[in-house]
Amino acid sequence: MYNLYHAHATRLSQWVRSGAVSEETVLEHFLGCVERLDPTIQAFVSIDPDALRARARQPTGAPAKGPLAGIPVGVKDNYDTADHPTRFYSPIHDDNRPSRDAHVVSLLRQAGAVIMGKTHTTEFAYMHTGPTCNPHDPRRTPGSSSAGSAAGMAAGFFPIALGTQTAGSLIKPASYCGVYAFKPSYGLVSLEGVKPLAPSFDTAGWYGRSVSDLSLVAEVLIPGLPARPPASQPCSFGFCRTARWDQVDHDVAHALEAAVEALRAAGHHVAEVVLPEAFASVFDDHQLINDCEGARSLAAEMAMYPDAMSREVQAMFTRARQIRWEQESAAKTRLVALAPVLQALFKPFDAVLGASCGIVAPLGLEATGPSDFIKCWMAFGLPQVNIPLVRKNAGLPVGLQLIGGFRHDSILLHAAEQVDAVLRHASQ
Amino acid sequence: MYNLYHAHATRLSQWVRSGAVSEETVLEHFLGCVERLDPTIQAFVSIDPDALRARARQPTGAPAKGPLAGIPVGVKDNYDTADHPTRFYSPIHDDNRPSRDAHVVSLLRQAGAVIMGKTHTTEFAYMHTGPTCNPHDPRRTPGSSSAGSAAGMAAGFFPIALGTQTAGSLIKPASYCGVYAFKPSYGLVSLEGVKPLAPSFDTAGWYGRSVSDLSLVAEVLIPGLPARPPASQPCSFGFCRTARWDQVDHDVAHALEAAVEALRAAGHHVAEVVLPEAFASVFDDHQLINDCEGARSLAAEMAMYPDAMSREVQAMFTRARQIRWEQESAAKTRLVALAPVLQALFKPFDAVLGASCGIVAPLGLEATGPSDFIKCWMAFGLPQVNIPLVRKNAGLPVGLQLIGGFRHDSILLHAAEQVDAVLRHASQ
Repeated sequence: MYNLYHAHATRLSQWVRSGAVSEETVLEHFLGCVERLDPTIQAFVSIDPDALRARARQPTGAPAKGPLAGIPVGVKDNYDTADHPTRFYSPIHDDNRPSRDAHVVSLLRQAGAVIMGKTHTTEFAYMHTGPTCNPHDPRRTPGSSSAGSAAGMAAGFFPIALGTQTAGSLIKPASYCGVYAFKPSYGLVSLEGVKPLAPSFDTAGWYGRSVSDLSLVAEVLIPGLPARPPASQPCSFGFCRTARWDQVDHDVAHALEAAVEALRAAGHHVAEVVLPEAFASVFDDHQLINDCEGARSLAAEMAMYPDAMSREVQAMFTRARQIRWEQESAAKTRLVALAPVLQALFKPFDAVLGASCGIVAPLGLEATGPSDFIKCWMAFGLPQVNIPLVRKNAGLPVGLQLIGGFRHDSILLHAAEQVDAVLRHASQ
Repeated sequence: MYNLYHAHATRLSQWVRSGAVSEETVLEHFLGCVERLDPTIQAFVSIDPDALRARARQPTGAPAKGPLAGIPVGVKDNYDTADHPTRFYSPIHDDNRPSRDAHVVSLLRQAGAVIMGKTHTTEFAYMHTGPTCNPHDPRRTPGSSSAGSAAGMAAGFFPIALGTQTAGSLIKPASYCGVYAFKPSYGLVSLEGVKPLAPSFDTAGWYGRSVSDLSLVAEVLIPGLPARPPASQPCSFGFCRTARWDQVDHDVAHALEAAVEALRAAGHHVAEVVLPEAFASVFDDHQLINDCEGARSLAAEMAMYPDAMSREVQAMFTRARQIRWEQESAAKTRLVALAPVLQALFKPFDAVLGASCGIVAPLGLEATGPSDFIKCWMAFGLPQVNIPLVRKNAGLPVGLQLIGGFRHDSILLHAAEQVDAVLRHASQ
């Protein structure tokens, strides 16, 4: 009756609040998964089962409260936590023990969540990968940089996890590991206590076991977010291949086109959206700004400990040093000019559909593949959702991306629920 | 010969590097000022003279190095520091001792600066004022929120100090206390380790004893900032009164107009700039976004400790709760639409001149007056400089504001040096 293996956070927290399942039972279930599988997956960089058990055993006399009562949450190791080190997968910060929780971590605890521990990030949430592997095939990358949170979701270590995204760091691991993800509009969630990489793009985001789980966390972390609009049928979707569709594998393209057909068959409207040619520069402009801002954000570390920085970060600094100030200004100006054009293109739609990634998780743990289909929307701060497609032949996960209008986060989550319902139904 | 009372940081650091003046001598000079005057001014919330002296006495065998060698710096108490508590003037954070320095503090230390201590901020860098008073008249406010840093500059406690600005928090205290200030373009300086208030506007900034001092710090905190253009004569300035010029006191208006005349007399071009009527909404749009984002940033504190929040913060939450999501979206959309219009208006000029504040420092320590003339530019992330006008009758300080184009920080600092040279000359 109480199947904890697949229960969504929305359901789990109801059980805990009602007293049907104790916080301790929930915790023991997830700790069991971690103990069995994490020696292989290596999602956690820091976890303290004894402290978690001691806390859960405290006799409070009443069931836990709050919208996330008793829900274990994995926290990417670039969020400060008062009870764990925060190391950014960099030896420079081995001894860093923050004195307080990041803003988002505070809000989760207040809502009743249990912080399970810290999950592996790539170095400074950039490109140098950690030890985490993909639960669907341990020879394959989980994607970066929110690797531990996404892999831990797929391995069943927690039903909710925090990540961050600057280029493709949240949606790519979701696509490779087959989990639901939500990256809100830029600026809606305070990044207090999260180490910046490229502040023009950096955004907090999270993973869940369903679109409802993503919405549940959104209600906690975005105070004042409007209620989702009442379910309306049919939805109106754009389908946008972008200028880089030639980089999409045949299998991935086929899965996405099948999803579009399923949506149409269910009565939703799907229209092709073609971006004006000027958008072709967005991929490179995002990278250029990311390099320049990344080099500024990590300037103190680079000055003090250049030998402790990875090859990938060194390469970012090398590129940044060769970029003239006016080039960065021009890149930003182009994005500012394109934003209203994109806004007008999105206007007729509840959400725009596309690929999360052009490929499934590649073999090897060191490279994680491009983030082009994600960063072209990140450049404008648009909200994004990853919906894992069900592969009938039990192949590797493929991610369907839904992109919303700026600050249309509620509408996007509503549309994602409609899409998910159709796709789950089609797969049965 | 070595007059430490008025020496600019550029000069002081040369003396220290050359060994002409020891770091210890510099420190003792400034500690002496603090010990004599801070019981009245109350600029510092945390300072440890013994630890500073012990550090300065360490026999390094050679003079200090770096562009800020031996320069004492006051740090606003919303920047994390590894050697002081960070309290945001809120009892909620009384016990907060960060484990590491904010990004900007790290860069200052690497450049040889000596962190003197933490200076008073208003609560969460918002409106509830602390005990600091204005050195020009202790019955008057120093302005908020970077009160301690600006008052400490005016009292001679340090030649450089850090502040932050969301509405008028850096430039207003500079105007009231008569110190030089620079607020760079939005996004150029990492805010790691600084508590966010309204992330769409929050920006680090600093005070100095001259425009050269402001530039010296800019070179340290903005790696890659282009060198200032070679001195060109004459400069081309816009003079913009904005839609709220009726709120400028007669004396302040007269001082600014006299400055404009002095610039013209020195051969510079000054043309009136009139903003299109659509800009009249910017003042209120900034406030509305500030309220909404502020309430989101402080949501964790408000949920846990509502009784520990000031009346001013409570009022912000009350306003934010009454603002609909669509109103905030519309305000942001208006700013996005106006940004390119402003960019075109600024194009013919090296910088635009205006009032920093419409009034001199008002009487009383609880209210600090409006920030309209500052936040109307903050809304667009433009770089700003405050130049204190020399009042011949030894009246209270009046600030001349210079505003630059987005990311034209080097050009702005260059223009500020030209303006300052004319005004210093005119006053002799």
